[in-house]
Amino acid sequence: VIEEIEVAPPQANEVRIKIVSTALCHSDLYCLLKVVEKEFFPVVLGHEAAGIVESVGPGVTEFQPGDKVIPLYLPQCGECRFCKSPKTNQCDVIWTRMGSKEMALEKSRLTCNGLKLRQFMGISTFSEYTVAHQMAVAKIDPDAPLDKVCLLGCGVCTGYGAAVNTAKVEPGSTCAVFGLGAVGLAAVMGCEAAGAKRIIVVDINPDKFEKAREFGATDFVNPKDHNKPISQVLMEMTGGGVDYSLECVGDVECMRSALESCVKGWGVSVIVGLTDMQDVTTRPLQLTSGRTWTGCLFGGFKSKDAVPKMVKDYLEKKLKLDEFISHTMTMDEINDAIDLMKQGKWYIQPQLT
Amino acid sequence: VIEEIEVAPPQANEVRIKIVSTALCHSDLYCLLKVVEKEFFPVVLGHEAAGIVESVGPGVTEFQPGDKVIPLYLPQCGECRFCKSPKTNQCDVIWTRMGSKEMALEKSRLTCNGLKLRQFMGISTFSEYTVAHQMAVAKIDPDAPLDKVCLLGCGVCTGYGAAVNTAKVEPGSTCAVFGLGAVGLAAVMGCEAAGAKRIIVVDINPDKFEKAREFGATDFVNPKDHNKPISQVLMEMTGGGVDYSLECVGDVECMRSALESCVKGWGVSVIVGLTDMQDVTTRPLQLTSGRTWTGCLFGGFKSKDAVPKMVKDYLEKKLKLDEFISHTMTMDEINDAIDLMKQGKWYIQPQLT
Ligand SMILES: NC(=O)c1ccc[n+]([C@@H]2O[C@H](COP(=O)([O-])OP(=O)(O)OC[C@H]3O[C@@H](n4cnc5c(N)ncnc54)[C@H](O)[C@@H]3O)[C@@H](O)[C@H]2O)c1
Ligand SMILES: NC(=O)c1ccc[n+]([C@@H]2O[C@H](COP(=O)([O-])OP(=O)(O)OC[C@H]3O[C@@H](n4cnc5c(N)ncnc54)[C@H](O)[C@@H]3O)[C@@H](O)[C@H]2O)c1
Ligand SMILES: [Zn+2]
Ligand SMILES: [Zn+2]
Ligand SMILES: [Zn+2]
Ligand SMILES: [Zn+2]
Repeated sequence: VIEEIEVAPPQANEVRIKIVSTALCHSDLYCLLKVVEKEFFPVVLGHEAAGIVESVGPGVTEFQPGDKVIPLYLPQCGECRFCKSPKTNQCDVIWTRMGSKEMALEKSRLTCNGLKLRQFMGISTFSEYTVAHQMAVAKIDPDAPLDKVCLLGCGVCTGYGAAVNTAKVEPGSTCAVFGLGAVGLAAVMGCEAAGAKRIIVVDINPDKFEKAREFGATDFVNPKDHNKPISQVLMEMTGGGVDYSLECVGDVECMRSALESCVKGWGVSVIVGLTDMQDVTTRPLQLTSGRTWTGCLFGGFKSKDAVPKMVKDYLEKKLKLDEFISHTMTMDEINDAIDLMKQGKWYIQPQLT
Repeated sequence: VIEEIEVAPPQANEVRIKIVSTALCHSDLYCLLKVVEKEFFPVVLGHEAAGIVESVGPGVTEFQPGDKVIPLYLPQCGECRFCKSPKTNQCDVIWTRMGSKEMALEKSRLTCNGLKLRQFMGISTFSEYTVAHQMAVAKIDPDAPLDKVCLLGCGVCTGYGAAVNTAKVEPGSTCAVFGLGAVGLAAVMGCEAAGAKRIIVVDINPDKFEKAREFGATDFVNPKDHNKPISQVLMEMTGGGVDYSLECVGDVECMRSALESCVKGWGVSVIVGLTDMQDVTTRPLQLTSGRTWTGCLFGGFKSKDAVPKMVKDYLEKKLKLDEFISHTMTMDEINDAIDLMKQGKWYIQPQLT
């Protein structure tokens, strides 16, 4: 199907990008498997990519053909009250776009035999070309290897930032990371970078533990090895709970466990995993006893500002990326990649080029 | 019954206090009506009071007979890792005491015909005398009027601190306070002191609104006047939600509304109301979109350090207290006071002397 997508030329303030590398994130899968509204389809998935500017629309001065770029599913318009506040990265544009299905479709530049295809999260990278508004594109270092830095388009920034920006992990602290996909591993990397003394990882797939150790994990918990709640296991391991926990699974029971694994008084739990099918629950006393429950998108990074810096950090070897890549496949093999993800068969991030 | 309570002399590190004034807080009522475990009774309620030291046990050097004091249901031992951290006021002692029913009973100095009576929250103030550990007593200014400053033993510190310490309300912000008992009114006062521009109050009893206005409330919402969720009403009133919300009711549906009334990106909701009979719920996306959910006890104030300062603030007219007192009654009339509270018949805090 991919070959048949037609991509319109960029309109005012838009950039047409040749996608060079793209990876698969669980959010693509979530959309594919869990989103029930028929009108969401047809959609072109993919939101974690890097490419080269092919052409620009009127009004675009920041980009030129040939620039290396990363498309941003969380845009940074720079104008709204959210962009202007230092407290958040959640540009209003993402919500108005998500909130209005009609507008999202109208703005799409992708068609197939004349039928509009929805652009997933405003970008859609499982396509040879895509078109995005300039507020949703980050220009990166011309030396950046696109097959590596594409991971900064979602998973790695998401997990890393959740630890350093949202949880604000402090040196010497004890952290727990639930789920060891790319997002969770990046969270482990973020906890380590922030100086955590102890990083406990929790995953039902113990194949993931070895890789987590490379990223800095110190303790490994497989819920299947215990017949009591994981929060209790972690409470006992730590003498009262962890300082920070990060939920990188997307499961409401894990979200509750992650919160309840935190120490009373000051424990902070960050929901990174995405799901919106069910309510998440806890006992009020878990919060009145001083825990904090929050969450983030894209790791709390203001996307257009942060992505070029993260690319630089990678080039200066301050940030790992190569270690996240478990498989290299071609775009034709995308359905195989999705099967692999469903089966949890890879360590981390499959990368399609 | 009250006359028949026998209060043992203070043991090591304990202080025996003549209770001069005590007020009634909803938590007493919660205990009376909702706590189902039989072994919790017999108990002497009351935890918001002021009095005079009558005698001290061995090892007490900080207090002398005649000192004016406020007993602290949330102690400050000064030694545990929670007391030593600037991040919390939740001294470990409260949890070990609450956690161990046997120990709590053993530590009680109150008896009736030889039968041990549980000391509610480690103090029990609906009694002529009580005995408390010195870590659970604050010495206050000798000029303090005990019939006023008793309110600093719980409700006023709880609500005020929830706004200034836990929510950390910022100047110019928009706040919502759910529930206008003493706790909610004190929260309004805290929001105002912190410089909030707009303070929206929500109560199903509109008789409370006039008093709230005196404390600084600017907008008044009675859920009974609306046939849509209150979070939606507040979203519309504020063009996207409040910066801070404080739940001062103790109801899981209100807790959810309070969270969901916050603006995405940076909204903070603090659970102040107490209930632990049911789970509190929300959609995960409410948190991943950047809201923060937390809670506190005693307004996040380190009790022994803060209460004397709050008394001083009252004496210097920086803090309102007199305005909270709706009824003055005698201890004999305590059951009438409880009836009044059940019926929501008073504005705020009944005070028993
Ligand atoms: N907030 C954001 O901005 C954002 C961005 C990207 C991804 N996400 C979300 O983050 C989550 C993780 O994404 P990913 O790409 O790393 O996914 P992934 O499928 O690669 O990894 C998920 C991991 O969780 C583990 N797991 C499953 N159930 C578990 C359980 N009950 N307890 C412990 N571990 C369990 C799996 O074994 C797997 O290792 C997804 O929900 C995704 O949608 C959020
Ligand atoms: N966290 C703490 O340290 C702490 C300390 C003291 C009290 N509390 C708790 O704070 C809460 C308030 O205590 P209080 O003494 O002010 O109680 P109160 O009974 O005097 O006031 C409660 C108010 O909530 C209103 N209310 C009831 N249902 C409502 C609804 N659905 N929507 C809006 N308003 C509603 C009532 O009309 C009343 O005005 C209680 O749950 C109490 O146990 C907590
Ligand atoms: Zn993603
Ligand atoms: Zn913006
Ligand atoms: Zn109280
Ligand atoms: Zn302590």
